[in-house]
Amino acid sequence: MPIRTGQQYIDRIDALNTYISLDGEIVTGKVSEHPAFKGVMQSQAKLFDLQHQQELLETMTYESPTSKERVGMSFLQVITPEDLVKRRYAAQEWALSSHGFMGRSPDYMNTTLMALASASDFLKDKPNCFPEHLLQFYDDAREHDLTMTHTFIEPQVNRKRYYIEDEEVTIAAKIVGKTSKGLVIKGARLLATQGGITDELLVLSTNGYDEWKAFGFSIPSNTAGLKFLCRQSFVGGDSTFDHPLSARFEEMDAIVVFDDVIVPWERVFYYENVDVANHFMNVSGFQAYTLHQVLSRQIAKTEFVLGVVQSIIDTIHIGDYQHVQQKVVDIIVTLETMKALLLKSEIEAQRDQFGFVRPDLATLQVAIQIFPKVYPTFTEIIQLLGASGLMSIPSAQAFAKDEGDLAHYLQSFQDGGEERVQKFRLAWDLTMSSFGTRQTLYERFFFGDPIRLSSILYKSYDRGHLVKRVEDFLNRD
Amino acid sequence: MPIRTGQQYIDRIDALNTYISLDGEIVTGKVSEHPAFKGVMQSQAKLFDLQHQQELLETMTYESPTSKERVGMSFLQVITPEDLVKRRYAAQEWALSSHGFMGRSPDYMNTTLMALASASDFLKDKPNCFPEHLLQFYDDAREHDLTMTHTFIEPQVNRKRYYIEDEEVTIAAKIVGKTSKGLVIKGARLLATQGGITDELLVLSTNGYDEWKAFGFSIPSNTAGLKFLCRQSFVGGDSTFDHPLSARFEEMDAIVVFDDVIVPWERVFYYENVDVANHFMNVSGFQAYTLHQVLSRQIAKTEFVLGVVQSIIDTIHIGDYQHVQQKVVDIIVTLETMKALLLKSEIEAQRDQFGFVRPDLATLQVAIQIFPKVYPTFTEIIQLLGASGLMSIPSAQAFAKDEGDLAHYLQSFQDGGEERVQKFRLAWDLTMSSFGTRQTLYERFFFGDPIRLSSILYKSYDRGHLVKRVEDFLNRD
Amino acid sequence: MPIRTGQQYIDRIDALNTYISLDGEIVTGKVSEHPAFKGVMQSQAKLFDLQHQQELLETMTYESPTSKERVGMSFLQVITPEDLVKRRYAAQEWALSSHGFMGRSPDYMNTTLMALASASDFLKDKPNCFPEHLLQFYDDAREHDLTMTHTFIEPQVNRKRYYIEDEEVTIAAKIVGKTSKGLVIKGARLLATQGGITDELLVLSTNGYDEWKAFGFSIPSNTAGLKFLCRQSFVGGDSTFDHPLSARFEEMDAIVVFDDVIVPWERVFYYENVDVANHFMNVSGFQAYTLHQVLSRQIAKTEFVLGVVQSIIDTIHIGDYQHVQQKVVDIIVTLETMKALLLKSEIEAQRDQFGFVRPDLATLQVAIQIFPKVYPTFTEIIQLLGASGLMSIPSAQAFAKDEGDLAHYLQSFQDGGEERVQKFRLAWDLTMSSFGTRQTLYERFFFGDPIRLSSILYKSYDRGHLVKRVEDFLNRD
Amino acid sequence: MPIRTGQQYIDRIDALNTYISLDGEIVTGKVSEHPAFKGVMQSQAKLFDLQHQQELLETMTYESPTSKERVGMSFLQVITPEDLVKRRYAAQEWALSSHGFMGRSPDYMNTTLMALASASDFLKDKPNCFPEHLLQFYDDAREHDLTMTHTFIEPQVNRKRYYIEDEEVTIAAKIVGKTSKGLVIKGARLLATQGGITDELLVLSTNGYDEWKAFGFSIPSNTAGLKFLCRQSFVGGDSTFDHPLSARFEEMDAIVVFDDVIVPWERVFYYENVDVANHFMNVSGFQAYTLHQVLSRQIAKTEFVLGVVQSIIDTIHIGDYQHVQQKVVDIIVTLETMKALLLKSEIEAQRDQFGFVRPDLATLQVAIQIFPKVYPTFTEIIQLLGASGLMSIPSAQAFAKDEGDLAHYLQSFQDGGEERVQKFRLAWDLTMSSFGTRQTLYERFFFGDPIRLSSILYKSYDRGHLVKRVEDFLNRD
Repeated sequence: MPIRTGQQYIDRIDALNTYISLDGEIVTGKVSEHPAFKGVMQSQAKLFDLQHQQELLETMTYESPTSKERVGMSFLQVITPEDLVKRRYAAQEWALSSHGFMGRSPDYMNTTLMALASASDFLKDKPNCFPEHLLQFYDDAREHDLTMTHTFIEPQVNRKRYYIEDEEVTIAAKIVGKTSKGLVIKGARLLATQGGITDELLVLSTNGYDEWKAFGFSIPSNTAGLKFLCRQSFVGGDSTFDHPLSARFEEMDAIVVFDDVIVPWERVFYYENVDVANHFMNVSGFQAYTLHQVLSRQIAKTEFVLGVVQSIIDTIHIGDYQHVQQKVVDIIVTLETMKALLLKSEIEAQRDQFGFVRPDLATLQVAIQIFPKVYPTFTEIIQLLGASGLMSIPSAQAFAKDEGDLAHYLQSFQDGGEERVQKFRLAWDLTMSSFGTRQTLYERFFFGDPIRLSSILYKSYDRGHLVKRVEDFLNRD
Repeated sequence: MPIRTGQQYIDRIDALNTYISLDGEIVTGKVSEHPAFKGVMQSQAKLFDLQHQQELLETMTYESPTSKERVGMSFLQVITPEDLVKRRYAAQEWALSSHGFMGRSPDYMNTTLMALASASDFLKDKPNCFPEHLLQFYDDAREHDLTMTHTFIEPQVNRKRYYIEDEEVTIAAKIVGKTSKGLVIKGARLLATQGGITDELLVLSTNGYDEWKAFGFSIPSNTAGLKFLCRQSFVGGDSTFDHPLSARFEEMDAIVVFDDVIVPWERVFYYENVDVANHFMNVSGFQAYTLHQVLSRQIAKTEFVLGVVQSIIDTIHIGDYQHVQQKVVDIIVTLETMKALLLKSEIEAQRDQFGFVRPDLATLQVAIQIFPKVYPTFTEIIQLLGASGLMSIPSAQAFAKDEGDLAHYLQSFQDGGEERVQKFRLAWDLTMSSFGTRQTLYERFFFGDPIRLSSILYKSYDRGHLVKRVEDFLNRD
Repeated sequence: MPIRTGQQYIDRIDALNTYISLDGEIVTGKVSEHPAFKGVMQSQAKLFDLQHQQELLETMTYESPTSKERVGMSFLQVITPEDLVKRRYAAQEWALSSHGFMGRSPDYMNTTLMALASASDFLKDKPNCFPEHLLQFYDDAREHDLTMTHTFIEPQVNRKRYYIEDEEVTIAAKIVGKTSKGLVIKGARLLATQGGITDELLVLSTNGYDEWKAFGFSIPSNTAGLKFLCRQSFVGGDSTFDHPLSARFEEMDAIVVFDDVIVPWERVFYYENVDVANHFMNVSGFQAYTLHQVLSRQIAKTEFVLGVVQSIIDTIHIGDYQHVQQKVVDIIVTLETMKALLLKSEIEAQRDQFGFVRPDLATLQVAIQIFPKVYPTFTEIIQLLGASGLMSIPSAQAFAKDEGDLAHYLQSFQDGGEERVQKFRLAWDLTMSSFGTRQTLYERFFFGDPIRLSSILYKSYDRGHLVKRVEDFLNRD
Repeated sequence: MPIRTGQQYIDRIDALNTYISLDGEIVTGKVSEHPAFKGVMQSQAKLFDLQHQQELLETMTYESPTSKERVGMSFLQVITPEDLVKRRYAAQEWALSSHGFMGRSPDYMNTTLMALASASDFLKDKPNCFPEHLLQFYDDAREHDLTMTHTFIEPQVNRKRYYIEDEEVTIAAKIVGKTSKGLVIKGARLLATQGGITDELLVLSTNGYDEWKAFGFSIPSNTAGLKFLCRQSFVGGDSTFDHPLSARFEEMDAIVVFDDVIVPWERVFYYENVDVANHFMNVSGFQAYTLHQVLSRQIAKTEFVLGVVQSIIDTIHIGDYQHVQQKVVDIIVTLETMKALLLKSEIEAQRDQFGFVRPDLATLQVAIQIFPKVYPTFTEIIQLLGASGLMSIPSAQAFAKDEGDLAHYLQSFQDGGEERVQKFRLAWDLTMSSFGTRQTLYERFFFGDPIRLSSILYKSYDRGHLVKRVEDFLNRD
């Protein structure tokens, strides 16, 4: 049966024996049992299991056009406006399961792949392009319920404008050879979230100024020569009392090194075609479809934050202050705004050149302006409301051995000491632990450099008619 | 024919001879020819004329349920969701005509009256309440295409919390007597926009702590004892080159004084019923329906601002700067957000207790949080982009007598001196003239004190399920 | 006697018959009696008279090194740190007299000239440079108590980076010829504040990419071919009740056109020396000395704003609200910060290469970052506190003919209607009249484009030792 | 010899065997070797050692008026303005040593005690007050170079206004008995920074509504019944590559529980005197003197942040972007502002009622408004500049076992991979580790609730003369 269970997901990843390096150690044994990965893999497994819940079957799956079996809704191509709504419901369900903390829940990458596959016609008859490979991979991924990660950016050697890497030194991954088996890739790319715990790694170069950096392909995570070099883990520990979020949702980010990796030809979507590399993503519905999914995730996250904030207000009884009310209202405004933009993107959806229905891109580009600026303010709000409560956070162990002092002296208006500290630890893990701050950073840059996103919107947003309207006004009478 | 023409509107107002005091002079003669009023009355007349344009007839009017003649769409009661859309289209058309600068275009007050009339059942069988008077007045207004202003607030003697006026001194208007003819009202109310140039004055007390301040009624502007005391006029002059906005759209604000005014019983909707006075507005669809109209106006205004900003950018050629792009994007985000919230309010409309369909109030309450904060930033954006251009603004007369210096030395990348100065004068009138700054103040407080609006939203917005969601999360495993 | 009286100033300006064009009319007769100029000239005259007040003589004047008569303190060259303090006291006195609303009170330009003269050695022995002319003019200005305006910037044709004007079209003023009498200048410059009501016009080109735009000189305002083309006047009227600020302090801004103006050689400080044109201002103490004066003016203005804000709070009794208190505190923080930076600039003053003592430039560059951002917030504060009170502003005439309504119904907690409206009209004139908004724009750009000022500070501020400190920290242990 | 060495400090604390509970374990053995405390104790020891450096002896110490030996400068009472400068130099030296990360470096508490002792006359002849105990303790602390922590606030049960604890339930510490030996105290107080690693705990109740909560005393940390219950430790680990700040400066915060603690009478400064409890802190120079020290610490911290930010800019070469420059300038403005306010507080120092010289309080109250708002923006700046670099942070171990991938692929414009990651790990520890976020929270609330601090400044700041100035202006002419 195409949709997989959580256990199947875990077993498959464990079997891969992907090269993962963490703190100088190569991960051996089952990755699903490694402290840095077990929590998030369990959370991901739950997503797969949700697909099998009878009452969610219609929401989470659809009938495969090929196998006629149930496959994951995030693979659904959008033929009608209703398909968009179906996709939204499924995205919301998964987002709710992890409260929006997993930026690389499988639907994000499934959506990416669906978007590219739906635009595969663009590759047709172009030099060094293989739309059939892309379509085949899309089918495989859907029918095997594969998980993917990706790397779209190059190492941050030099962020000066117009920096072009010297040919002599290879840092960013590039084509260094071609053999009968496939492309040979050498170099590094950033920053694969969930790197090492997915079946596949999807790689698309987006600024292919040079032929040797113009490529698109996907390879299994355990391909020879492929290495995932991890940052320090932000799992605080096993205890879900102490680390309610990081114990469950810490996704890890990895630098990906290609050490003369051979990409089999049947997995190459295009190569050495600068024009295609520069335009394929933009011509495809990648932005529109993924932002549509992203917004559902961000909405779930905002709802969770609002719940946390209100819990804190209730437990220490500060809801009568005007400045407290204003802070809550600011979150409400963000929440309703994003919900409204999501609806608008669907209402204003249009059929694209490939025959599929896309949500309105301008609306979604506006939406993606908001969260990177607003999400960091949630930390500010929680710190200003939580105050010393965010520092009065003894651990589960402390409570376990407590003889009454903590339970008594840390009580609040509404809760006993332990219940109250549990809420504050959640607020702390959300905004102040290494996990929480990584979330903030992640949301700041989720869809790319905010300044670049602004510039794109500035250039693409249609407003000539408004300038005309002003001119007509000046010339009337 | 029920819908009136612009000329009919003007003639009717001129005929009223309403008591209007301005700079110590009582306005005599035709008010439509007075420098402080003629521009805005011409603009208002255009709105009436629009209703008669053949191609807009379906948009701007509908068939009266009583007279079967065409009446103004802003009077339409909302039986179906489609009625909301119709109302939106009409509101947009009028908003476009004045680019959102007329906060008291007749549809605002028509909508108010429609909302109250639709909730007239609330008054049924309550002491001192006359729902039949309200319904009759609604019919009259619709069939005669009356214009109204209103005053909902009391003089700002003391803004301390819980201030209650001393009984001895009458400042805020109150009931001082009852005769066979009607209620006797004495005192002042603030701040009637368009006061003096409408047919009627609608008065609803909203915080009727005391019986003598609990009333709702409407009276003709020329009722004996009723005085409109105007602030200084902000019409800069006749020239639409020099004062493109104030010459057309300056609405005037007036203090309303009731000098023992007798309100005929047939125009009294309720009196001396504190409970009704305190709840009628909130129980009715007043907020939901008027905010739905207001949003259309604010959207048109934002579009105009965006057009002006882009015109300036184009004329002095500064669109390549990143900080300039960011400023434009900020306006785009506001615009799309408000459009999205307006759509959402319609999609989530629900039938109310009186059988009518209301747009979603929470969504609209969120929307009204945005403009008071964002509109003032438009001034900042325009000042930062316009810079010295906003001070290099010779008048039309200066250009008329110019021998070439101004035309030459004030040219820009795109325009000759006069065209360029015309654009900057528009930007200046929009944000820096007395008219422009009054607009900013008006938008800050359009729907009431922003702090109070926040508090209302804090209290009414449903989020118990989100607190529950957080608790479930903490208790899982 | 060198220091002049107000009357002497007025008589001298009247006698010049400078070419001033306003609304297409050439000003004829006494400019001091023209509605657009009389208020500010009266205010300026008061500054001159202050110099003659016996108790201020020591503060406002010093003994001329040449004539041994009393001359204006703003001409004082800074030999000792105490001289800086003397200069500050004098600047504060004048700033207080106009509450900081006159950006071109004579001390600003006097300071400019003093700074240039003190650096005249820089011009010595350089091609086409005449330090002796500069010194002579400084002496003349001091001994005759001359007033000056200046124009440092070019018309805003195109603000694109690296825009260089086409040689064919003359817009920005440039050298078009040289005769035995002097340089011939043609073209325009922006934006002479007080243009037309000063004795002299000082012109320094600051970005002399081309020889023909590299010059520095001063000429009398009535030089043949020199024209001051004014923007619309922002004097609201004569009444100081209605227009307490614009009736007194509106300085006017003028485009300056040079119509083949001959600048006599003895008034040329340098010409056709690109290197000198590019560096003289920066090498001189211009920035340090003028910013030192500017800060005193901005402090007086901030104090006035704080007084106005508190008056409004008191009159409507809103000082108990936390958000009101926060707004006042924000102004207090600005005020104390600027006072502190002014002190620091004096304490850290150092002797420059020409032997004079300069206040610390980095400190003053920091100070000038603050006001352009904070001043506009004063408008926001006043609007949020004043609310409808800023629209309930009948004119003096209205009160004159009032039969009690206005006095009664507009009373506040503390004041009768007229006293209260007087305060709100002041607040309105400060922030919402055309005069007030021009003040805001003026402060935003007072010392140049804020972005450019930031960039200069970024480049000049010494922080290598702090980077070193971090590196040492990383390498310790 | 009164000033102690670092080793003496460590030995003394180790010998105390204070009751410290952490994660449910009671700390046994030497606290100076416990992972949660050893780093900060080493850093603290360095401060003591600094006092013994020959070249710093004059800066860091002065001659004791009693023992005639060298004692710590932070104990110096301020007889002359020069004494303030001496105190500043010493505070700066210690602040530099820990770059401002230790909020409870001993000088803070020494200053507190000095301030109270200098105001001991206030206690004279008041009921239940013992100024002689206070003076004796001040002498003891100075002559033994004691370290202290303190707890000034009560548990956050309920932050509703006017909440008064029920008498039945003891949560906040209070007097529950009096014996011949001393006061008996029961209950908890928050939040002792460095709790457990100081010699003494100073306790002052600040809102003594009730007699049983009105007290001031100091007791040794190892007093019977006194418990320090710690939050989770934020020491990330031993490696100063991985955790350059938390390995050195994590101070720990502890809830303090009094389990029927007997406070010896000779250590009681006052008790059961509500009036004294409410006013002693404010009457004393506590605020002025401690803020004077705090500012030196915050300045050192800001300098460190500026150094870190510039290091990152340099290493990835982004200093040419205007938005990057603006962010640096914002930090520069903060830094110079605080330096200026510190100077101003000294220049405007005045002699108090007890005969000592106090820095200007209003100036310092303004200063303390700034950091709580600005410090959190440092995180934003670092995240926006650091971007993905803040996630590409392998550990020291990873580098130790790296075979060249990390060093190569993580290189930057300026640095090799390891050097670059070291800088980014510092930036991360500064702003994104649990240590870094705790620092942010700490600075937000360092001197109390910012809203309360605003309110105090609003009420105390003298501005009547400015209101008067406005009134005079309105009444002139």
